[in-house]
Amino acid sequence: MAENKLGFELQGCDPSGTLARWGVLHTAHGDVQTPVFMPVGTQATVKALAPDDLLAMDAQIILSNTYHLYLRPGAQTIADLGGLHGFMRWPRPILTDSGGFQVFSLAGRRKLTAEGVVFQSHLDGSRHLFTPASVMETESLLGADVIMALDECAPAESDHAYHRQALARTHQWAAQCKAAFAHLQQEQGDRFPNPHQLLFGIVQGGIYPDLRAESAAALSDLDFPGYGVGGLSVGESKAQMYEITALTTPLLPANKPRYLMGVGSPEDLLACIAGGVDMFDCVLPSRLARNGALLTHAGRLQVKSPRYAKLDAPIEQGCTCYTCQHFSLAYLNHLYRAEELLSYRLNTIHNLHFMVELTRQIRAALIAGRFSSYKAEFLARYQPANQEVAASQREARVRAMRAKASN
Amino acid sequence: MAENKLGFELQGCDPSGTLARWGVLHTAHGDVQTPVFMPVGTQATVKALAPDDLLAMDAQIILSNTYHLYLRPGAQTIADLGGLHGFMRWPRPILTDSGGFQVFSLAGRRKLTAEGVVFQSHLDGSRHLFTPASVMETESLLGADVIMALDECAPAESDHAYHRQALARTHQWAAQCKAAFAHLQQEQGDRFPNPHQLLFGIVQGGIYPDLRAESAAALSDLDFPGYGVGGLSVGESKAQMYEITALTTPLLPANKPRYLMGVGSPEDLLACIAGGVDMFDCVLPSRLARNGALLTHAGRLQVKSPRYAKLDAPIEQGCTCYTCQHFSLAYLNHLYRAEELLSYRLNTIHNLHFMVELTRQIRAALIAGRFSSYKAEFLARYQPANQEVAASQREARVRAMRAKASN
Repeated sequence: MAENKLGFELQGCDPSGTLARWGVLHTAHGDVQTPVFMPVGTQATVKALAPDDLLAMDAQIILSNTYHLYLRPGAQTIADLGGLHGFMRWPRPILTDSGGFQVFSLAGRRKLTAEGVVFQSHLDGSRHLFTPASVMETESLLGADVIMALDECAPAESDHAYHRQALARTHQWAAQCKAAFAHLQQEQGDRFPNPHQLLFGIVQGGIYPDLRAESAAALSDLDFPGYGVGGLSVGESKAQMYEITALTTPLLPANKPRYLMGVGSPEDLLACIAGGVDMFDCVLPSRLARNGALLTHAGRLQVKSPRYAKLDAPIEQGCTCYTCQHFSLAYLNHLYRAEELLSYRLNTIHNLHFMVELTRQIRAALIAGRFSSYKAEFLARYQPANQEVAASQREARVRAMRAKASN
Repeated sequence: MAENKLGFELQGCDPSGTLARWGVLHTAHGDVQTPVFMPVGTQATVKALAPDDLLAMDAQIILSNTYHLYLRPGAQTIADLGGLHGFMRWPRPILTDSGGFQVFSLAGRRKLTAEGVVFQSHLDGSRHLFTPASVMETESLLGADVIMALDECAPAESDHAYHRQALARTHQWAAQCKAAFAHLQQEQGDRFPNPHQLLFGIVQGGIYPDLRAESAAALSDLDFPGYGVGGLSVGESKAQMYEITALTTPLLPANKPRYLMGVGSPEDLLACIAGGVDMFDCVLPSRLARNGALLTHAGRLQVKSPRYAKLDAPIEQGCTCYTCQHFSLAYLNHLYRAEELLSYRLNTIHNLHFMVELTRQIRAALIAGRFSSYKAEFLARYQPANQEVAASQREARVRAMRAKASN
């Protein structure tokens, strides 16, 4: 594909007054229809799945983590094996983060320096340095279609003053990443598996509207082909997250994609698509699956519950995922209780299919001009997890009172 | 399929003088070409695989364990969900063992009674009784195509006197199983998911030729549609196992299949097919796979070895399994070291495909009249694991001596 065809094409905006939009991101490994949810393949595999499983659910793009791959098996090894696409045999688009989020999460094992950030590996304690230039080199070797600039993700509890400092660093690093990436492409492109990568900048600023505005302006000036919105879903309330998102996206160029990093749940997707976001990634659906919590349009279902032990029905009627097309809740209940490896795969297939299908339906609703009603109908049926927990606690209290009364 | 078409059809015997033969076992869920290796699906799943994975390697029949399924999720639950075939969505033949082997392995937690054997569950310590009639009921509820009679698998170290006692019980139980099974089929067939099951008897007798002969005669008199050879691969030497096998099979009816229970490795299959065996099952290939030991025509390969960390080649050139067709040793090495769930599935697919393909090739060699040369060629290339270990220990000693000499 010619390089001048790469990048985002905004195709439409929700006529009903939300900030929602739809479009297509052209990459060297194919097109991505937005809004999109990206399954997370941290170590060059979406946990428990093979690429065929992701193709079967028609996942359009997956994410992989630079920090983990840099440490093991190493970026040069992956480059030598054809880049991430060749290494893991995934033919469609890939996005890599910068590793910044992971490194800044290593509390007590990382230190800022003039050049970048020094950290100790969680695997063996060995010391490493990430700089804007080194991260661009690493992500170039990995060869994803979308790569992210190095940023500082400040802890949620940081104050305005700290965020201002961190933001200055993030903006400086964004500019350095852009320059380093351009240099690598021009001077050393032959060393890398994918000559058509897109570098996204990342907006930070915590929960402070003034800093978010400053960051959006600074990043916009650098003219990236796309923008991450980072530093959310790190401890602030959902209301704050939704508010900051909807406040930030209008300050970014309309014709560039916005990627809300590390978000989220089904209800988060609906809220943040309405807030102008195009791309999402989150480990939540696959992690829930491995813990036996399965997504349905009514909320989460705990597959180990005795109520499913003899139920000859799929997780959800009408679901077109491989798991629901082939296996009963009784069998899934058995596999989970028996701690069988197949349980992880079948549960993960269902939850990721749910998220991918949700964004497909949202996109169709947007195009048909009925996004707001789709959102309202979904949320009317869907019981978020915390409410579900509260309900089951209420139920337990009622049962306990009844039991007392009957004694 | 009409019931009178079920059972074994002997199609030919090795003209080169071994006891090897080939044939076909007709079952209610299709034909099984013998010799055959049966992957083990203990808890109604071959660990880490879905039925599609087994169909892709063209596995003809799988085994499942009555003891485990009886305890969890329970035989009646499985019957209510369409039997094992419906429960796990496997459309091809299934064999269930009787649970006797597992119960007799529960040293200190089981006790023989006049009726059968009382044991404590390994899951929760609850007490249960297996009798010939109860096991026939359980296996009828599970609905496999081939079911096994309850037998006593005496410990390998038992003496002749103990084996004689155990054998008397095994023969009595075999007759009781046959009667109970006939009764269940005639009187209560509607309760069971598979009206066309085949009940096999089991020859025991340890490593004592006289007891094996006595057992083969007693079981032959009971006229089962097939015979297990049990109590081998439980601690005796390989030479003893091969000798007892080849001594037992000629004493069984030629037109009935012989199933050597719990065997084995690639070299065991070749030796015991030459000794007149038609059917095998063993957890070894799948267990090795989960531990990163992969089968090749040269012997086992340890996927975690640094020598594979950058190797862009399949486990074995020419292998047609899904894993070898899609992934490099470098990727498999990474998945194993990173403890990714996909590692278990891809490794298991390869090892089970190796075993299934081995029996396919042996059958073709038998039909073509070149079994003995196939066997000789395979064994000339294949380095069994114990020799491999010995060789690597020799190599380590040599390296240590060199290191000393150079100091």
